[in-house]
Amino acid sequence: MIRIIGIDPGLRKMGWGVIDVTGNKISHVANGVCESLGDDLAQRLLSLHSQLTRVVVTYRPQSAAVEQTFVNKDGAGTLKLGQARGIAMLVPAQAGLAVGEYAPNKIKKTVVGVGHADKGQVAHMIRMQLPGVEIAGPDAADALAIAICHAHHGGASTLAQAVARASA
Amino acid sequence: MIRIIGIDPGLRKMGWGVIDVTGNKISHVANGVCESLGDDLAQRLLSLHSQLTRVVVTYRPQSAAVEQTFVNKDGAGTLKLGQARGIAMLVPAQAGLAVGEYAPNKIKKTVVGVGHADKGQVAHMIRMQLPGVEIAGPDAADALAIAICHAHHGGASTLAQAVARASA
Repeated sequence: MIRIIGIDPGLRKMGWGVIDVTGNKISHVANGVCESLGDDLAQRLLSLHSQLTRVVVTYRPQSAAVEQTFVNKDGAGTLKLGQARGIAMLVPAQAGLAVGEYAPNKIKKTVVGVGHADKGQVAHMIRMQLPGVEIAGPDAADALAIAICHAHHGGASTLAQAVARASA
Repeated sequence: MIRIIGIDPGLRKMGWGVIDVTGNKISHVANGVCESLGDDLAQRLLSLHSQLTRVVVTYRPQSAAVEQTFVNKDGAGTLKLGQARGIAMLVPAQAGLAVGEYAPNKIKKTVVGVGHADKGQVAHMIRMQLPGVEIAGPDAADALAIAICHAHHGGASTLAQAVARASA
């Protein structure tokens, strides 16, 4: 069994989802959204870091994956997302985890079967694959999708290494 | 006396500079560059976080300032810089410091007198204002300039609050 955390980075809301993978079987562990309040950027990043660290300490994942950020022409938006993404990558690395990165359309293709699915379809397929799951919101759904994508594409050897490292 | 750290964010090289401010007088404490090696983004961010945390623990600044990143049309570059900047903002916030932000042309205008100075002029003026300083490189020079800018514009009340908070 390997436990995976998926993280959907965002400065205001950062989604996270934890699943267990045993062979071909995946099961839901927990999901949620870290919300940063306030206008002070440093305080917001600190708040995201503290909340996400608490998630990692609580659920002890063995491998992590973060969505590759879509770079668009909105430079200010890209910068904000980049700052949040720095925290999303840092927290699992601080816990000694390897951090996979997946493009949004690869994640959708894995979970829904097509690269251009809408959020409703993604949530629907997650509910099919993780029966009984209660999803904390769209960002948490995206995070669970990232975790499922990592379970499929992380590569057996990479994930086995992660388990070996975690149990060493 | 108040001790200020200036940070020039970058994913490959992150400059830092520490100065002491007593009334109108500033003096140099230390400066350097954190370099992240390797291709793995999470590991590079972790490396920058560890090195910068060591600097803060060693020199115990009471206030911090980070350069506002110039957003341009290179989305991938902006994203990289954003991720590094997330770490640059996080580390002083984790130490309980308020983090000021200054635009590049404000920093140059404060240190050199004009907003469009080249790197050589900035380094020259820093050597004038901090006699005897040995500058670790261009990124460290920028970081010292940010610290000097914060000493001038941080506002007496803000800096006094920082001191009160640090000694509380």
